[in-house]
Amino acid sequence: MDSPPLDLQPSVDLGALAERLQRLCIAGGWTVATAESCTGGLVVDAMTDIPGSSGYVLGGVVAYADAVKAAQLAVPVEMIAAHGAVSAQVARAMAEGARDRFGASLAGSVTGVAGPDGGSPEKPVGLTYLGVADEDGVDVRRMVWSGDRATNRRDSGIALLELLLERVATPAAIPHG
Amino acid sequence: MDSPPLDLQPSVDLGALAERLQRLCIAGGWTVATAESCTGGLVVDAMTDIPGSSGYVLGGVVAYADAVKAAQLAVPVEMIAAHGAVSAQVARAMAEGARDRFGASLAGSVTGVAGPDGGSPEKPVGLTYLGVADEDGVDVRRMVWSGDRATNRRDSGIALLELLLERVATPAAIPHG
Repeated sequence: MDSPPLDLQPSVDLGALAERLQRLCIAGGWTVATAESCTGGLVVDAMTDIPGSSGYVLGGVVAYADAVKAAQLAVPVEMIAAHGAVSAQVARAMAEGARDRFGASLAGSVTGVAGPDGGSPEKPVGLTYLGVADEDGVDVRRMVWSGDRATNRRDSGIALLELLLERVATPAAIPHG
Repeated sequence: MDSPPLDLQPSVDLGALAERLQRLCIAGGWTVATAESCTGGLVVDAMTDIPGSSGYVLGGVVAYADAVKAAQLAVPVEMIAAHGAVSAQVARAMAEGARDRFGASLAGSVTGVAGPDGGSPEKPVGLTYLGVADEDGVDVRRMVWSGDRATNRRDSGIALLELLLERVATPAAIPHG
């Protein structure tokens, strides 16, 4: 009982992270855009739920269909065909595409298999790639969640907010690894 | 006590509406895209929260900044300058833009003043325009909510889902008024 499951308080974490991100982004002059697939808007919703979020959020794309990833975020169709929509390559291209299309200084992306369907031996339910792009380049992280659809989506959302926070909390003078 | 306030059960309504929309859209062969401003992704998040939503949801744009409304949804900058971002004209253009950009058969839009800031005598906090576009044209509705930011956002989301439902529940043989 000393470590209650995270899903007992679903909104607390996302909201607290979004508030912290807003504070740091406004203080640091960052503008942010998102490109979400499996989370379906959960991240930008959490961000814009905070009063004053228009001070740094430009907007986001929910690219659920592959054609939308191509048309709205300039993800090459050949890349999706070669690596799959849930891949490090596509997460990277989505983050770069969002940053470019929205003219944001920082962009985050997420693509994954939320479940319950859509999994395969190579790409199981829970596999998720996160991307974060700024002028220094793009970082991509790979996660494998083990929850149900709702938990996987929320964990992906939390992870993306944490990744964005990590980037804006890093002093510009220290080069990214 | 016979009519509890709606905000005691925030997720029930959105989820139930999204489930019903999914059932009707998949049965009717509709594909759906969204263009959200004040709701910040809440609507597309509710839709994609339902397993199987990739069967009809193509995606959405969260156009928080005016420049994003212009760049991602082809809302004319002159229109925003003339009528304001929160206007029937912009709601209409956002719905048309989303339908066109995503290649969806149905698109919904929402633009409003969620608060707590941003209100004016002509455009008070709570003023919201909703749009729904299909091949027959665009309907726009005007609402004035009286809640706080969270309640206004949720009421806008519910109203947009209801407007989309209304459209897909209308038999195609009956011309829209």
